[in-house]
Formats: sequence, structure tokens, C-alpha cells
Amino acid sequence: MSWFEEAIHPEIRQSIRIDRVIFEGQTDFQNVSIFDNNLLGRVLVLDDAVQITEFDEHIYSESMVHVPMVSHPAPKRVLIIGAGDGTVLREVLKHEALTQVTMVEIDGALVKICHEHLSDILHGAFDDPRLNLIIGDGAKYLRESDQEFDVIIIDSTDPDDNSTALFTNAFYGYAKARLAKGGIIVAQAGCPAYQPSIRTHMNERMHAHFTFGGFYHAAVPTYIGGLHAFSWASDAHDLNDIAETNLKTSNKNMTQNLSTRYYTERSHKAAFYMEACR
Amino acid sequence: MSWFEEAIHPEIRQSIRIDRVIFEGQTDFQNVSIFDNNLLGRVLVLDDAVQITEFDEHIYSESMVHVPMVSHPAPKRVLIIGAGDGTVLREVLKHEALTQVTMVEIDGALVKICHEHLSDILHGAFDDPRLNLIIGDGAKYLRESDQEFDVIIIDSTDPDDNSTALFTNAFYGYAKARLAKGGIIVAQAGCPAYQPSIRTHMNERMHAHFTFGGFYHAAVPTYIGGLHAFSWASDAHDLNDIAETNLKTSNKNMTQNLSTRYYTERSHKAAFYMEACR
Repeated sequence: MSWFEEAIHPEIRQSIRIDRVIFEGQTDFQNVSIFDNNLLGRVLVLDDAVQITEFDEHIYSESMVHVPMVSHPAPKRVLIIGAGDGTVLREVLKHEALTQVTMVEIDGALVKICHEHLSDILHGAFDDPRLNLIIGDGAKYLRESDQEFDVIIIDSTDPDDNSTALFTNAFYGYAKARLAKGGIIVAQAGCPAYQPSIRTHMNERMHAHFTFGGFYHAAVPTYIGGLHAFSWASDAHDLNDIAETNLKTSNKNMTQNLSTRYYTERSHKAAFYMEACR
Repeated sequence: MSWFEEAIHPEIRQSIRIDRVIFEGQTDFQNVSIFDNNLLGRVLVLDDAVQITEFDEHIYSESMVHVPMVSHPAPKRVLIIGAGDGTVLREVLKHEALTQVTMVEIDGALVKICHEHLSDILHGAFDDPRLNLIIGDGAKYLRESDQEFDVIIIDSTDPDDNSTALFTNAFYGYAKARLAKGGIIVAQAGCPAYQPSIRTHMNERMHAHFTFGGFYHAAVPTYIGGLHAFSWASDAHDLNDIAETNLKTSNKNMTQNLSTRYYTERSHKAAFYMEACR
């Protein structure tokens, strides 16, 4: 019997039993491991960190996508940076107003591996005709593109060698320049309890560019540390205020028409009411 | 370097580094281990399960205590069953309306150990003159007592050999008989993601006795599995409705006067808006 041991912090760690190995390999960018666990279903690990499990990936992907998409009055053009596993893309595609989604992922081999081994989870997301998939560097794309987007979703790994360019002050400046009027940007912001530096980082480098900015949260069981944080910012919309007092009728219809397992109007409100450990 | 490994589920487990051993021993009821971890501070383990860590015990104890206490219009007489570590007692004592708190804990040795080794956390809770501490069986106490209580808090370990009597249909019947008019009862209800049977159990055996009943949640970082559940019930108060629409002016004053690290009016609302993994 073998276990995958995640060492997110030198003082605390989580282990998941590897009940059946599905894939093991190295891309140009990272080590990819996919296995099945009897409780959690299929599990994707990049380098030493759990990315998704079949058991609860919907809590993460639905929170990341539907909170900004429902807060925006008409999200037609969406940009995803990272999120190579495809679950965030799957959620974006549920929005009927969507006309095009551009996804920029640096690791083409990862996309192929996930397309093959996570097909039961992805429901054909990578085959959708609205998808413009670009294999390349997300920071470079933002710098050179002249496209505009209503919602930009940054779903990177935690800051490390591969993703460090997605956490700089300059990067968020480029991202802001690609947001259409009224646009909203969100980025995954780690575990506030065990990775508090990411929070400071987001305040200083991301929120500083925008009129409104903050965090919302979801509790994803297989991410240790209680809550997981998402960082949001916008020059037009105060997402906190929308969640508390102003989830509009049109938005309510949107929440009701989405076919989701976790996301609801209540979960949307909870995301903003939940306070990180302090 | 030694690690404490918590095996709450055969498929997933968490480990906490033991940086300094403080106490190791066996009472008549359980194995007690107290150690320090550089991230989490002092950690209390009973048998194989983490009970509290200095880092986040306040999220659990404040959620367990202040949600029912603030929902009740005038909680004067409180009964705690279990909770031998003393952190729940510490939170109950913060309520100015309180005239007496009775605490029934089966393991007297555990209380002594915690009084000695968790004194920095407990702020003298066990020395408060309002405390009536009874070392004995909580189920037996409820059956034989003729006292009435405004709030009853059941803070047991998960169902096992020591606590099984605190999870029966009969037990909740006895508890109901000891609730004053307008009373509220809460009980810890485990991790909904990894211990779903506790939830079913609470619905069938606890809520069935009362007009109103349900669950609220908090994300405690060192309890693996995202959210932790609390089961509540009352014949007089719908706690869900109070949280959503009716946190009254008097209650708002109460939330503001409490000296807490986690609990606020927002966290109270979040506790009811958060949905367990599904």
C-alpha cells in the first residue's frame, strides 16, 4: 500500500492513499501524477501538490468561476490563464451568454494528459467550439495581446518556479489592461491559514491596481487548512457588496439556470461572509 | 523528528510534527497526548484524534458556543457535556447574562491535565465561581437531574466507546427534558465530507425530537475535511432564520460586546450559509 504525501508546510502534511496508479510522467514543466483513491476518486497531483480530486474539484472550480461570472452583468468574453486540468474551463462553458473563452496554459502535455485521463470529469470541455486554446506563457500573452475580456481567471499553481511570473505587480498591470470596461479579475490565492504570505502579496500587487478588491473563500475538503482563498479585483464592481446586498434578479436567474453541484446563491453569499483564520 | 499521524479515515490522513512533547499519559478513559508544534502551538490529542490546537481552537469553540448563545434571547443557565479541555467553558463564561454553567465531564484526570498544561489558553476558566463542575457520565446526569437549562452544549468526541451514550435517541430525549422553555441544544457533528454518517445520525436521533433543527458549519484549519459541522435543535427558535433575517438588535449588541478572535455577526451568518460538500 502506497501513499502520496503532500508537504505544503514543514509542520503539517496530508497523505492520500494511492489505490490505483493511472499515470506517472514528467512534462517539460512539472511532474504529473494521476491516481485513484477509493474515497476521493481520481486525483491529479502536479509536483508535490494535489490539484484536484474527483470528490471535491467542483467546490473549487464552481467557486472560482461562478462568483465572478454571476457578479458580472454580461460575461461574454472570458480569459483563463493556467487551469490546465480543464475543470475551470468546464464551468466557464456553462454560461449561456459566453461567446468565446480563451485559455492560455503553458504546459501542452498536461492538457493532453488531462484530456485523456480526466475525461469523465471534463464532459468534453476541451472539444467545445467556443474554446480558443493557446499553449504558451500567460504573462507573455497578456503583454502582447490586444483582445479584451469581461472576466479574467488566473488559476495558477502556488508561487513557484513555473508560476512566479503570474504573481508579479507587472503581470496584474498587463491583466488590467486586457479587461474590458466593467471587467472582473480573479486569481487563486492559496490557503490563508498556512500560506498567509500569498494574501499579503495579492493585496500589494493585485488589488493595488484596482478600485475594488478583496478575497472570497470556499472550504475544499482535500485542500488542508480549512478555507481556500480567491483574490478578486475590479474597477467597476464591488463583489463583496453585490454578494451582501445586490445579487440582482438577472443574476439570480443565472444562478438558478446553472447546473452546479456546489454553487448556489447561498454559497455565493457564504464565500464573502466566511472569514479566514485570524 | 517525530510526527503525530491522525487516521480519521483509511483513505486520507493528516500528520502534525511533534516539536516538543509536553505530556503523555493514559487516564481511565483515554490516551492523552499534549505536544507543541512550531506552527500550531500547543496541541491536545485524545486517543488518535486532534482535539484542539492553540492555532485555531477559537474557531471551533467560539462557533460552538456563541451561535446558540447569541440566538437565545437571554441565556442564563448553561449545561456543557464533555469539552474536558475547557475551551468551550472559556467561551460560555464570556456571556454577561450567564448566572451558572454546569459542566459534566466523564474524565476528571483529563480536566486536571488540561488545567495544568493548557493554562495559557484557558484564562482561568476552571476557576470561575459561576462553574459547577461535575465529574461523571453526561447521559446519567441528564436522566437524573431536575435542573433546567437555556442552552445545552454537547461537545463529545466522535462516536466511539467512550461517547456512544451521547449519540443515542434516548440521550437526546433526556436532553430535551432538561431544556427550559425557549431552550437551544447544540452538538458537535463531525466532518460532513469524511464522516457523513454522523449527519444522518443527528437528523434521525437528535432533530427528530424538536420542532426546528439543522446544521451550521465552521472551517477549522487543523480538522481535515474542509468544514466541521455543528448540529442544533430547538422547539422555540429557528436558528437558520435568525441568522438570515433576524439577528436582533439585542443580539447584535451581544456580538459586539463579546471579546472574540473569530466570531462576528458575519461569521454567524456564514455558519448557516456554508453548505457541506455535496
